[in-house]
Amino acid sequence: MGRWEPNARERLERAALELFVERGYDSTTAAEIAERAGLAKSSFFRHFTDKREVLFGGQDVLNRLFADAIAGAPDGATPIQALGAALEAMADVFTADRHAWAHQRQAIVTSHDDLRERELLKLAALSGRMADALRERGVPDPAASLAAELGCLAFRNAYARWADPANEQGFADLARRELDDLRAATATLT
Amino acid sequence: MGRWEPNARERLERAALELFVERGYDSTTAAEIAERAGLAKSSFFRHFTDKREVLFGGQDVLNRLFADAIAGAPDGATPIQALGAALEAMADVFTADRHAWAHQRQAIVTSHDDLRERELLKLAALSGRMADALRERGVPDPAASLAAELGCLAFRNAYARWADPANEQGFADLARRELDDLRAATATLT
Repeated sequence: MGRWEPNARERLERAALELFVERGYDSTTAAEIAERAGLAKSSFFRHFTDKREVLFGGQDVLNRLFADAIAGAPDGATPIQALGAALEAMADVFTADRHAWAHQRQAIVTSHDDLRERELLKLAALSGRMADALRERGVPDPAASLAAELGCLAFRNAYARWADPANEQGFADLARRELDDLRAATATLT
Repeated sequence: MGRWEPNARERLERAALELFVERGYDSTTAAEIAERAGLAKSSFFRHFTDKREVLFGGQDVLNRLFADAIAGAPDGATPIQALGAALEAMADVFTADRHAWAHQRQAIVTSHDDLRERELLKLAALSGRMADALRERGVPDPAASLAAELGCLAFRNAYARWADPANEQGFADLARRELDDLRAATATLT
């Protein structure tokens, strides 16, 4: 098998999730994931540093999409409006055909302490990227950090609702509602 | 040496920090920390699960103090007022005689990726405890989660300022100002 492996990342992600569901996360090895994906073990480590990373592979893309969407919001947009634009842009990633994958992934992550920890760290990184993007728009601190935490909460809540197996709503609608609820909540804090 | 070891935790914490500063965090072992503290190696593992935990030993106490102070705030207090009371209660922990320790600890934590990650996880746990305590006061979601993130930001910022070697202000004053700044920032988000 040559180094040209079309969609290797996606194939590895899909194979990993199949095996995690069939055999359990703890009993699955990187070699088995590569085998199921029809790739060599070395391919696995070209794309992911370890087994855990298969579940968090899209994080860099997600962070960049968020930062770009915040940067691209209209000049006069408030921090919350810029976050709203960014959350709606995520609907391009969290599409209906990713729904079953997201649900299975979520079930595995929430049932393992080390995966939950990694998820928290990834969310902290996302929040940091959002705060940086807001600062670049001229939002001062601590408003930039606070808005980023609010945006991160909206994202977490919207993602959890979207990944729920019973959910039939699109990500953009869910995210808009979460952000509206959080915006309304800011008025009740003081 | 018997099992009665007065102030063993504090002695281990102090010895660890001395050694981390002298030899570097990576080159210091748990056995060396115990030796410097005048205790057996087994004592170390009675008090801490690993070397990293020596730097995060007070976290459970801190979480409980925060939760108790939020619970104990006056009935009519807004979420921000309850958080303010909790932050001021931390002045009992972050006293002037802990200042040099906090500064050295901060320098070690910020220069090691795995320690920074552990700090983020501890802060996420603190935020979770604060949100629970606010819910128990009847604060609905998502206001409880949002207020907890705001309280956590105020705590992080106040702690960083307090632990700065040049700082001469008390923790309560610093925390009050951070919280005031964040309260004012909420109005600028929308």
